Amino acid sequence: MASLLRTTGRSRAFLPRVNAPTSPRASIALQRRHASAAAAAVADSGEQPFFPDEPKLPIVQTQIPGPQSKKAIERLSKVFDTRSLNMMADYSRSYGNYIADLDGNVLLDVYAQIASIPVGYNNPSLLLAATSPEMASAIINRPALGNFPQHDWADILESGILSVAPKGLNQVFTAQAGSDANELAYKAAFMWKRQQQRGGANADFSPEDISSSMNNKAPGAPDMSILSFKTGFHGRLFGSLSTTRSKPIHKLDIPAFDWPQAPFPALKYPLSEHEAENRAEEQRCLDETERIIAEYHNPPAAVVIEPIQSEGGDNHATPFFFRGLRELTKKHNVLLIVDEVQTGVGATGKFWAHDHWGLSSPPDMVTFSKKAQTAGYYFGNDALRPNKPYRQFNTWMGDPARALLFRSIIQEIERLDLVKSTAATGDYLFAGLTALSQRFPAEIQNLRGHGQGTFIAFDSARRDQVLAKAKAHGVNIGGSGERAVRLRPMLIFQKHHADLLLERLEKVFLE
Amino acid sequence: MASLLRTTGRSRAFLPRVNAPTSPRASIALQRRHASAAAAAVADSGEQPFFPDEPKLPIVQTQIPGPQSKKAIERLSKVFDTRSLNMMADYSRSYGNYIADLDGNVLLDVYAQIASIPVGYNNPSLLLAATSPEMASAIINRPALGNFPQHDWADILESGILSVAPKGLNQVFTAQAGSDANELAYKAAFMWKRQQQRGGANADFSPEDISSSMNNKAPGAPDMSILSFKTGFHGRLFGSLSTTRSKPIHKLDIPAFDWPQAPFPALKYPLSEHEAENRAEEQRCLDETERIIAEYHNPPAAVVIEPIQSEGGDNHATPFFFRGLRELTKKHNVLLIVDEVQTGVGATGKFWAHDHWGLSSPPDMVTFSKKAQTAGYYFGNDALRPNKPYRQFNTWMGDPARALLFRSIIQEIERLDLVKSTAATGDYLFAGLTALSQRFPAEIQNLRGHGQGTFIAFDSARRDQVLAKAKAHGVNIGGSGERAVRLRPMLIFQKHHADLLLERLEKVFLE
Repeated sequence: MASLLRTTGRSRAFLPRVNAPTSPRASIALQRRHASAAAAAVADSGEQPFFPDEPKLPIVQTQIPGPQSKKAIERLSKVFDTRSLNMMADYSRSYGNYIADLDGNVLLDVYAQIASIPVGYNNPSLLLAATSPEMASAIINRPALGNFPQHDWADILESGILSVAPKGLNQVFTAQAGSDANELAYKAAFMWKRQQQRGGANADFSPEDISSSMNNKAPGAPDMSILSFKTGFHGRLFGSLSTTRSKPIHKLDIPAFDWPQAPFPALKYPLSEHEAENRAEEQRCLDETERIIAEYHNPPAAVVIEPIQSEGGDNHATPFFFRGLRELTKKHNVLLIVDEVQTGVGATGKFWAHDHWGLSSPPDMVTFSKKAQTAGYYFGNDALRPNKPYRQFNTWMGDPARALLFRSIIQEIERLDLVKSTAATGDYLFAGLTALSQRFPAEIQNLRGHGQGTFIAFDSARRDQVLAKAKAHGVNIGGSGERAVRLRPMLIFQKHHADLLLERLEKVFLE
Repeated sequence: MASLLRTTGRSRAFLPRVNAPTSPRASIALQRRHASAAAAAVADSGEQPFFPDEPKLPIVQTQIPGPQSKKAIERLSKVFDTRSLNMMADYSRSYGNYIADLDGNVLLDVYAQIASIPVGYNNPSLLLAATSPEMASAIINRPALGNFPQHDWADILESGILSVAPKGLNQVFTAQAGSDANELAYKAAFMWKRQQQRGGANADFSPEDISSSMNNKAPGAPDMSILSFKTGFHGRLFGSLSTTRSKPIHKLDIPAFDWPQAPFPALKYPLSEHEAENRAEEQRCLDETERIIAEYHNPPAAVVIEPIQSEGGDNHATPFFFRGLRELTKKHNVLLIVDEVQTGVGATGKFWAHDHWGLSSPPDMVTFSKKAQTAGYYFGNDALRPNKPYRQFNTWMGDPARALLFRSIIQEIERLDLVKSTAATGDYLFAGLTALSQRFPAEIQNLRGHGQGTFIAFDSARRDQVLAKAKAHGVNIGGSGERAVRLRPMLIFQKHHADLLLERLEKVFLE
């Protein structure tokens, strides 16, 4: 199959036809055209590929970047910062799990735009949504949603964003991206806390509140905080960056609020072999978190945490820790904000990663972005609506176009049962990596993400080299933290893709 | 014309046909169909309407909200905060300068989604762009632009966003909305200033910088500031809100940085009649700004200012003030950030409002959003690129879909010469309002925006009542500050629309 693709090479764009994925005619045509390829895939892995049109193997024709990409990068760098550039992509030739560049290279992509592509490049169902009249209207008639919402906004929310709301949360405030989703949740937390302190929603602001707020001084601009965890990541605007503790390069030279950080459990992997030690470590972190909540000079209104610390290196904690955190935040009357920007929308084998925890009561707010392709925070408690209008407000307050896209993503996830598939593929991949780690114990350390879908990572002493070599072998992988290899495939990543990934990793390790 | 629209009523959607605006066939068909209406408009105002398909007059059939809208609002309010709702819109029936609701009401819209719709609802040229294959790809294949930009990103930037870059600025960092555009500019300013203090781009971070940054403490998270002006508005996230000084309701209960505010000139209108006093007031504000820059305990890295303070009540200053600010920021080695989120993209009769000032050297950064339908900051000085990659970075770093839309907006502005048209229409409207203010001096006070296109406002003692009555007369107008009536029409607002607005305002004042 690789040679077939190679012969047609750059002349073939992987743009899918604009057919309904359920159209029998289209599906027959697809089946006929790719009968042999599909049959081969089925024979290898015992599964039906979701997208028979997808490339069967990576193609690496040049060094990456190749000559065409180099030219394009040089041009772009005159007007746009390209120093973080990983690969200059040609999305017209990318399809499914495969990302293409300008030089005819086509890579299996298990980084997926920093974990943000949910159902594949040029997904035909999304293409249908993107070319619908309602999408066109949403693009050209972008409303100020707080003032002039479109008449079907409730319907778009209910049939989309809210149809997958975490259990116990039935309202949403929409945003543009992960950073501002978190910051809006923080704002809601501060308003809630100060309202409580004043005596509830009917208690008015004091004249001192009002005048001091305009001077950025307490009590109007209160000396309160959001507690976050060491090595956590919650975004890079000023409030979110004050809760981000991932790497100095994210924080250097930017003023930050005097907000506290608690230790995040440093667990030993595999978790199942270190239960007692890990339990003690988690209890230590809970105790320290409780102490900080009680004692910090700028008292926290909320605690924010990722289910799996992602940018910080894929650091896990167990349900014990998160249940403990839920209990102690309730005890101390601070909110629990679960940042599902990277973990949400299926990648952990549940729609929301915190579904794994069995909480006694839901988080107070859950933020989302990335794979949702839109952003915001879910909440359930009416007291989290500020007591007056225009307190939580901005011009756009989200984007109906992206909300429509998320609705289609949800439909595609349901059509292909992708959360379940991701759970199964993740188990399969984890088993494969476990076997590989026994053969290459120096290459795969601290393998983690068991039972967490494809949200899998491991440490590697020569991480950056592994990522570079993997690319030369046709696989696009990202890193995180200091030395983690972070696997963040799309939800359409199947067992035959996992086989390919394992085979290429083996080649890298053997070199 | 009103009666014609009224008979067809709700059954007619104002969705334009998907014709190229330059298609001779379409244009002939349009001309034939609307010959009499167009002729009437021309006869009235001596001008050709840009969109012959546009409604000729507002229609008000019910109280607003009417029964259908009330039902929809009630439903939406269960899942989304509707307390700031102004009007539940039906965008499928909105066209050009006219916004429709669910009850058959069609209003002349001079608020335009808080000044963010540039070239009309359902603009046919934008519809073409929104239904293009490249838009579809941008919607469904959203890249992490810093890592995997699309191969034609340079072309999209150069033919779009950068083609209208302010004089002297040739680079851009793209963002999602006005608030984060400003915050990213602030981050660039802090990184630039600290880099200077360390001795330039090659001087490395100290171990103390690195360790303290992770604890949100100086020197790594420096005690530096952004200076803004009293009654200014720059957004509502934590950093931008710390520079916003518009209203307590925007700021209450949200922690803020200890950053300074300088007085904004309180000028007397009309400016031409109070030159000496205003000059003295502006000099006073410049002197105080200089004092704060020199003395504030958290030294400013940059000064941020709006060309016309918009949310704060449409407060103007003269070119003398802005030129003075440019000089003193240079003298004290702090950056000048001009926030053109609301003033940019043509509304003041120049593409950028700061083009009115005749600066000796350009602003260091200019931020944009709203009418651009995308956001970011322009800059020219290479030293404003942080010295290492990943310092200014986030997952999406903007949105190619919205960048494509801005390119089409720019083309539409050029095709119809809308900046020039807005300058002329603005002068015409200002003259009409001046005449009206002489008849109704209590209703129109401090009329301002002369020579600033349609970016016009006046104070009214009974402002909220005026806005409500105007709506009942078929005109959607916004307010700002404590008592300003803020006119913020689209760039396709023409003299015949101005006539209509003046006529309806007169009716309101006569009541």
